[in-house]
Amino acid sequence: MNDAPRPATHWILTLSCPDQPGIVHAVAGMLAEHGGNITESQQFGDPASGLFFMRVQAESTASREELTGAMDQVAGRFGMTWTLDVVGRRIPTLIMVSKAAHCLVDLLYRERSQRMPVDVVGVVGNHRDLEDIATFYGKPFHHVPVTRDTKAEAEATLRGLVEESGAELVVLARYMQILSDELCRDLSGQIINIHHSFLPSFKGAGPYRQAHDRGVKIIGATSHYVTGDLDEGPIIEQDVERVDHSRTVEDLVGIGEDVERRTLARAVRWHAERRVLLDGRRTVVFR
Amino acid sequence: MNDAPRPATHWILTLSCPDQPGIVHAVAGMLAEHGGNITESQQFGDPASGLFFMRVQAESTASREELTGAMDQVAGRFGMTWTLDVVGRRIPTLIMVSKAAHCLVDLLYRERSQRMPVDVVGVVGNHRDLEDIATFYGKPFHHVPVTRDTKAEAEATLRGLVEESGAELVVLARYMQILSDELCRDLSGQIINIHHSFLPSFKGAGPYRQAHDRGVKIIGATSHYVTGDLDEGPIIEQDVERVDHSRTVEDLVGIGEDVERRTLARAVRWHAERRVLLDGRRTVVFR
Amino acid sequence: MNDAPRPATHWILTLSCPDQPGIVHAVAGMLAEHGGNITESQQFGDPASGLFFMRVQAESTASREELTGAMDQVAGRFGMTWTLDVVGRRIPTLIMVSKAAHCLVDLLYRERSQRMPVDVVGVVGNHRDLEDIATFYGKPFHHVPVTRDTKAEAEATLRGLVEESGAELVVLARYMQILSDELCRDLSGQIINIHHSFLPSFKGAGPYRQAHDRGVKIIGATSHYVTGDLDEGPIIEQDVERVDHSRTVEDLVGIGEDVERRTLARAVRWHAERRVLLDGRRTVVFR
Amino acid sequence: MNDAPRPATHWILTLSCPDQPGIVHAVAGMLAEHGGNITESQQFGDPASGLFFMRVQAESTASREELTGAMDQVAGRFGMTWTLDVVGRRIPTLIMVSKAAHCLVDLLYRERSQRMPVDVVGVVGNHRDLEDIATFYGKPFHHVPVTRDTKAEAEATLRGLVEESGAELVVLARYMQILSDELCRDLSGQIINIHHSFLPSFKGAGPYRQAHDRGVKIIGATSHYVTGDLDEGPIIEQDVERVDHSRTVEDLVGIGEDVERRTLARAVRWHAERRVLLDGRRTVVFR
Repeated sequence: MNDAPRPATHWILTLSCPDQPGIVHAVAGMLAEHGGNITESQQFGDPASGLFFMRVQAESTASREELTGAMDQVAGRFGMTWTLDVVGRRIPTLIMVSKAAHCLVDLLYRERSQRMPVDVVGVVGNHRDLEDIATFYGKPFHHVPVTRDTKAEAEATLRGLVEESGAELVVLARYMQILSDELCRDLSGQIINIHHSFLPSFKGAGPYRQAHDRGVKIIGATSHYVTGDLDEGPIIEQDVERVDHSRTVEDLVGIGEDVERRTLARAVRWHAERRVLLDGRRTVVFR
Repeated sequence: MNDAPRPATHWILTLSCPDQPGIVHAVAGMLAEHGGNITESQQFGDPASGLFFMRVQAESTASREELTGAMDQVAGRFGMTWTLDVVGRRIPTLIMVSKAAHCLVDLLYRERSQRMPVDVVGVVGNHRDLEDIATFYGKPFHHVPVTRDTKAEAEATLRGLVEESGAELVVLARYMQILSDELCRDLSGQIINIHHSFLPSFKGAGPYRQAHDRGVKIIGATSHYVTGDLDEGPIIEQDVERVDHSRTVEDLVGIGEDVERRTLARAVRWHAERRVLLDGRRTVVFR
Repeated sequence: MNDAPRPATHWILTLSCPDQPGIVHAVAGMLAEHGGNITESQQFGDPASGLFFMRVQAESTASREELTGAMDQVAGRFGMTWTLDVVGRRIPTLIMVSKAAHCLVDLLYRERSQRMPVDVVGVVGNHRDLEDIATFYGKPFHHVPVTRDTKAEAEATLRGLVEESGAELVVLARYMQILSDELCRDLSGQIINIHHSFLPSFKGAGPYRQAHDRGVKIIGATSHYVTGDLDEGPIIEQDVERVDHSRTVEDLVGIGEDVERRTLARAVRWHAERRVLLDGRRTVVFR
Repeated sequence: MNDAPRPATHWILTLSCPDQPGIVHAVAGMLAEHGGNITESQQFGDPASGLFFMRVQAESTASREELTGAMDQVAGRFGMTWTLDVVGRRIPTLIMVSKAAHCLVDLLYRERSQRMPVDVVGVVGNHRDLEDIATFYGKPFHHVPVTRDTKAEAEATLRGLVEESGAELVVLARYMQILSDELCRDLSGQIINIHHSFLPSFKGAGPYRQAHDRGVKIIGATSHYVTGDLDEGPIIEQDVERVDHSRTVEDLVGIGEDVERRTLARAVRWHAERRVLLDGRRTVVFR
């Protein structure tokens, strides 16, 4: 289709649609027609939802326009939702924080050491405590304080920052304010949160205190997409660490921070690598 | 103190009391007076409850009467609750089951391979499904069916079995009936249960189905002492296993069984080795 | 292609071949032509070996002959090695043991509770210690003692048992004799072994003693296919457990047994489910 | 013993000596005489080495001189090696690095967030790559290049830095030079190293490449005291992470860095909290 030779690009294609015969064949055929060599591919059919999910990495010299046009045809036939991206493209990401540094430090370090394909375009804090860390890593820090009276205004500022920075992902790295339902819906599937998790779970204030009082032997963290219902969006990743009776509440908090930062880091990386697909209230994670 | 030489016995002493200076000194002194050589010792002062916990293993040629008399004096001084036992004594244990075999098979195997100092004196089932396993391991199987009408009678039978068998521990190895509050209180600290645990936790029927619908990435199990409130007694041990989106509800159940059996096995072993001390709603586990 | 309606069968197709464009398209096309609905599919291209691996589960009413004929054509075009099996078919399996019971008990329990698609067709022991366990589970026990002088004869007996029983898999469940290189080659990819593993590794006798002397904090197990070089075949699964200074050599052995049995169980299940493909000295495990 | 009231200090006492009756009694008695209230205490008798280990935390208003004098008497009686320190005292620590940042970033962050009682008095690098990180955290950075010709000189510089800075601990945070046997002996028990670990272990260059070629399913890290024999000193802590066939060598390196940094962080914290006692080639870690 091209007169001039073009270097091959390494593409990521993700898609979901109602499960039915012929999907893989159609997608593979479309790629084959465009000289695509599949380097990695995973599929999953969910019997519960009746949906089929697929993530393909393929090298091809075809242009984005060619692939997009071809996929539009396939997608129309099967009723697909799909995305096309380039392997390794760094996703513009806005990190939101309050006072706790552990997740921010970890994410910025991982970006810098190139262990995570994100491009942190800014850090938003409702407090100024973490400004120096952002600055050290060369990131613009936006102080957006939130009070009951200024909440609407603050959220408008946040929307502005997302737009101006071109952020495609917002990471709530222990951001202690609740976003409005409206914002959550508008950025659905683009906001990732992290919170602590316990067996059993504890409601109300001071969860680490409660976990300590109950003598739990394991503490954990859950990273999930944010929906209107703050802690209840689709789970991307969970992890835990063992503790024992000798740990103080303060110890539990410290251990919890370690679990939180590594759980969040995995969730962000998998999202940025387009490994996470939404399946209703669940996620499909093609690790 | 003795005319005749006596071979040394390897003792386990556990105690708890209000925290105060001089406890360790007094206990160690008492043991030293009786020729005791401490081979293992752990202490823990809980700042929250103000209680002090201690577990000591010591070799001594003193008799049980001598040690008991001496400990009575020490205990009186400090307001101690205490136990004295012999290292490796196999705790008479009654296992209660319904239809699921995984925990029973595991416990019986571990007893036989001498990885756990218990002496299983019988298996009680409200169904007959697991009778052949009990029989293979040479254990008396007691069929005690439970219906709404026969619940009181069944519990009386159970109490009789505990007494006749001399059981000091009752293990609910996926026993699916709820014991009465009265029985739980009477056998407080002597009944160990196992149940599945999730992040977040799920109430109501079909927890594995719910966990699957929510797309959890970790499933776990909790082993605990039974109090009146079935699943809420002091936690002895918890463990988890990772799962992903591709696991069916059936898979989750199978993985859950693996986690349950190993979690229960650890809890039973630690209890039998007198490593678990009660600290209000918590446990101190001297592993 | 069929006159009469046939109920759909749930097939597993696995294949590997030199990586090249068009493989997935061809396989998916072949399945589509035979009315196949793909329910699960995983692919992996190994840049190091240049090989491509694929495992597909698909429901189809086509007969084995039809699918085999069609796959022969596709395979010829791409130079594929492939297998076709039915989901859930229980793989005839021979278990070999010596004196240690932990792996045997676990495998037989898992077979019976239908957590693992194997059909244990017999147990071979070079000692009689585990005969009663085999008998309890209704399995023929073959006592095949091995001495230096009878080794060749014993191996001939073993070959006979494999043939007569129709075993497609041999599991060395802590079988303490070394099989001949010839036998390992003849049954290449069909013998799974389990052994303990440490960081660092220890050569020579008494590895648990050595691990204890070195104060390791983690002990592990490795399950692998057996090649001529006993412990060095392609690794299928590994797992570990934490230990500390207070564990005796005996404790380490007990913990090691727990790790071994669960590691071996996973390896056998994944093999039986056709999830393990060979990639030179490595395995691809489509979990 | 004191005329004037003195606020209580929270002390840590660690000791080891040949195992024998009366040790705990003597130590507890000495503390009781000085008004000490034991808040945490652990003991361990190693049957293999015949040594007894103890770590006690106790609050007391006695002065260091008083306690030291009293302990000298007890120690003389039992042949003890012992240390007396104050809970929470931040151990002056020198961190040595080459080019890899992951461990340095983690340690400096943990120091700043007060999760680890160390006072990093300087960072030594044989390259300048990590100077900016040290500077950001307000730490003096010492560039001490090492070539074959300057090795002796560099080590003299290093000794000078240890002395001037008052460092009591040297952490090799992926420092890629080998220290001389003499230096290792002089700072015995004061140098902590981290290295990757695999099952099985791999000798020679490119261990991650080798691990990848072998298809390992677990990669790990070991933190240990440095003795003359670089990677073979007493192990303080080990940890692992699971990997699968789809991980590239580069992925393994990244995952390995995560395991390394958390393993090293634990080892340093436990050392700084005086929880690690030497038992010949092993450690006793009172976590």
